[in-house]
Amino acid sequence: MSVPKSVNHSIILRLEIDKEIASFGQIATVIGGLNGDIVAIDVINVGRERTIRDITVTVSGQEHSDLIVQEVKKMSGVKVIHVSDRTFLVHLGGKIETKLKLPIKNRDDLSRVYTPGVARISSAIHEDESLAYSLTIKRNTVAVVSDGSAVLGLGNIGPKAAMPVMEGKAMLFKQLSNVDAFPICLETQDTDEIVQTIKAMAPTFGGINLEDISSPRCFEIEQRLTEELDIPVFHDDQHGTAVVILAGLLNALKYVGKNLRDCKIVVCGIGAAGIACTKMLLNAGAKNVIGVDRDGALVRSVKYESSAWEWYADNTNPDQEAGPLSDVIKEADVFIGVSGPGVLKQEDVKNMAEGSIVFAMANPTPEITPEEAEPYVSVMATGRSDYPNQINNVLCFPGIFRGALDCRASRITEEMKLAAAKAIASSVTDDELNPDYIIPGVFNEKVVERVRKAVIEAAYESGVARKDQQHTRKINTESLEMV
Amino acid sequence: MSVPKSVNHSIILRLEIDKEIASFGQIATVIGGLNGDIVAIDVINVGRERTIRDITVTVSGQEHSDLIVQEVKKMSGVKVIHVSDRTFLVHLGGKIETKLKLPIKNRDDLSRVYTPGVARISSAIHEDESLAYSLTIKRNTVAVVSDGSAVLGLGNIGPKAAMPVMEGKAMLFKQLSNVDAFPICLETQDTDEIVQTIKAMAPTFGGINLEDISSPRCFEIEQRLTEELDIPVFHDDQHGTAVVILAGLLNALKYVGKNLRDCKIVVCGIGAAGIACTKMLLNAGAKNVIGVDRDGALVRSVKYESSAWEWYADNTNPDQEAGPLSDVIKEADVFIGVSGPGVLKQEDVKNMAEGSIVFAMANPTPEITPEEAEPYVSVMATGRSDYPNQINNVLCFPGIFRGALDCRASRITEEMKLAAAKAIASSVTDDELNPDYIIPGVFNEKVVERVRKAVIEAAYESGVARKDQQHTRKINTESLEMV
Repeated sequence: MSVPKSVNHSIILRLEIDKEIASFGQIATVIGGLNGDIVAIDVINVGRERTIRDITVTVSGQEHSDLIVQEVKKMSGVKVIHVSDRTFLVHLGGKIETKLKLPIKNRDDLSRVYTPGVARISSAIHEDESLAYSLTIKRNTVAVVSDGSAVLGLGNIGPKAAMPVMEGKAMLFKQLSNVDAFPICLETQDTDEIVQTIKAMAPTFGGINLEDISSPRCFEIEQRLTEELDIPVFHDDQHGTAVVILAGLLNALKYVGKNLRDCKIVVCGIGAAGIACTKMLLNAGAKNVIGVDRDGALVRSVKYESSAWEWYADNTNPDQEAGPLSDVIKEADVFIGVSGPGVLKQEDVKNMAEGSIVFAMANPTPEITPEEAEPYVSVMATGRSDYPNQINNVLCFPGIFRGALDCRASRITEEMKLAAAKAIASSVTDDELNPDYIIPGVFNEKVVERVRKAVIEAAYESGVARKDQQHTRKINTESLEMV
Repeated sequence: MSVPKSVNHSIILRLEIDKEIASFGQIATVIGGLNGDIVAIDVINVGRERTIRDITVTVSGQEHSDLIVQEVKKMSGVKVIHVSDRTFLVHLGGKIETKLKLPIKNRDDLSRVYTPGVARISSAIHEDESLAYSLTIKRNTVAVVSDGSAVLGLGNIGPKAAMPVMEGKAMLFKQLSNVDAFPICLETQDTDEIVQTIKAMAPTFGGINLEDISSPRCFEIEQRLTEELDIPVFHDDQHGTAVVILAGLLNALKYVGKNLRDCKIVVCGIGAAGIACTKMLLNAGAKNVIGVDRDGALVRSVKYESSAWEWYADNTNPDQEAGPLSDVIKEADVFIGVSGPGVLKQEDVKNMAEGSIVFAMANPTPEITPEEAEPYVSVMATGRSDYPNQINNVLCFPGIFRGALDCRASRITEEMKLAAAKAIASSVTDDELNPDYIIPGVFNEKVVERVRKAVIEAAYESGVARKDQQHTRKINTESLEMV
């Protein structure tokens, strides 16, 4: 995965400057002359003859950084002590830690949180297992589990290399929805072993967020865990993506004045995300979805090796349109790309129906750039933060798990996902809705609470919510209160 | 496990008091008359006619609590709104949470801790796995793993009921040694599945603390994990106990002026702790250790079913003393009990050698009470906090893991455990040493740092420490700094 330059590449130059020979102005001139953007200066040490300063510079990439460092090194009176990379620095030692909810100040506290007092808590749970939700971290804790087989755009980089991503996800869970998420990266890519491992550690957790597990194993792993566990299991790469795409699409259709039921929708890239997205579209009422992969549109007349593709061919493409993307895209109302860079051509977009909608989600390089597509589309969205309408899973998983935990849902149903999509869409008001704002931003504070509420309501309607007022009162009166 | 009354039983009565009819004085008189100890009063609400107050009362147990509540309810003008139990309250919702080390304030932060910036961190670890120790939580994170099969004195209560204990342990790790420990309770008691599960999740962690797993499975689980993983695996019930017992014994022997090598030591209760303790004693130089279980002393002439007992009989009891505890205890210098209540009789203690040492660790009721033993022993220790000389694992595991993590030890060797025991013992100075103070208290601030230092030194000597200055510098220069 190549990295967009602007967002994450700052370097910090620690310089020792001989005041007699060099000035900060000269240094700034050299860096500025090379298009380095100085964004912060910290004085570390001031001596009689020398000062040490940290100069933070935004650069466009490794080469740019090397060039700047090389030129600064050439200056007389300036010594480069070291150059740090801000992105690496924030990851140093990991990004999350554990925190005590209450301190252990003395022997009395110790005897309550640990032996001997804790024995009474353990006995109470032993007698009534549902008390685990009241008296342990289970009610607010989600495991973020990956086997490192399909991490970002990096591919199969293994569990240790996947950890920084899962830690980042755990941060987002906590910050956006106060869910305590813990990253677990697995030293196995065997389906049975993954299922067994997650089942074994499930008593600790109130939910399982699967992440970056490659297709097709991800389907079986999620399905078996959903069947065998009594806590929600959610493969975010499939369903998170599908929920947010649907949210954006609902608003885009509202803007162009079309109905999902009547649209011809081409989904390009029939992997985990493409399949999950298609299922959501069908559940939401879409009738004409056509899946396209490398060999063209999926049709019933072909026998596919993958059972997921067999299902796909059987349940989509009612008119059995065949051929490459450039054929089936004709007169399509919606293009949803979860495939690769540059797959959709300008010519294809021109051939779409009036009021066309293009979601080009390949990351970091979309199926078509907004610059190319914009003259011919009504609404355009991507997965990127540097264009309008970013389709980002961050809009979904914090709220959906917050809701699922709060009502003690045993699983996440289709109804809950659909409710989440509608809640995200509704965060953009009719007044606000415009082609550049069909989906709320990732820091929009309304989203989590809206998604949470909608998910809880849907969970009760689906019959998977296990928390009820009666039971809650029972816990209070029988265990926590002794009257 | 019955629970010592004084330490953990407080109740909070929330009372609505009609000021016209009842006064706080009257209430205090009623509670005090029933030997309830009022330790705190909080005013919750003051109305014109009624006040609501929380009254915290220390009671001697459930019956005492019931009696007080019943009598207060009988008072006119006093309504008992509810009675809470302080021990249950501190466990409500669990006792630990996750915390971000740095906040995600804006899109720029997001792009560094998560996509796209995190891709560069993941790539760096993918290229050099040892960087996981610099750039993820691995370097400071320990899993506290139990299958719930032997929890405290409660026995096989299962994983959910074990969680409060493991959370308490995680709190102690964090508070005492700043180790981020995460509790994982397993829904399996199958040895192979436990080993496979822990191996699978190991990439996340820098160490594994096994806890409350029943014997004999605990031996095989620990041994296999130690062999197959490259991070320390430590079954605290075995080795933590053994380390702290040895620490106490070293000081007790110093006080009575005896040498470990010359002592006759009777270990009573040949389970996981008894075996680990015996191995440590032998490693520390003891020559005459005799193991006693229900059927008397373990001897070579008997064929035992358990391979652990076979080993035990082959490696202890050089004089092949046989018979019940009351026989082999004669002329013993040291008794170490990790068995059950009341196993050691006053008569047995009288028959021990001059300057006898008795460690009666059965919890909550020791093999012999200090009151019974004291007239006849020189030094007495128990596992309890309400007598002097408490042998408590809390003195060992925070420091031993702190040290192991800090030097990136691949395992915890016998040398490291021995070093930890000596470090704990050395926390009591010669001036301080007396029969009532052979072991430091659990809140003694010197202990963790002393243990840590000693463990690191021993780890380098054993050749299991993987962190060296050279390597640390390499990380800084090649990955974090780009010069």
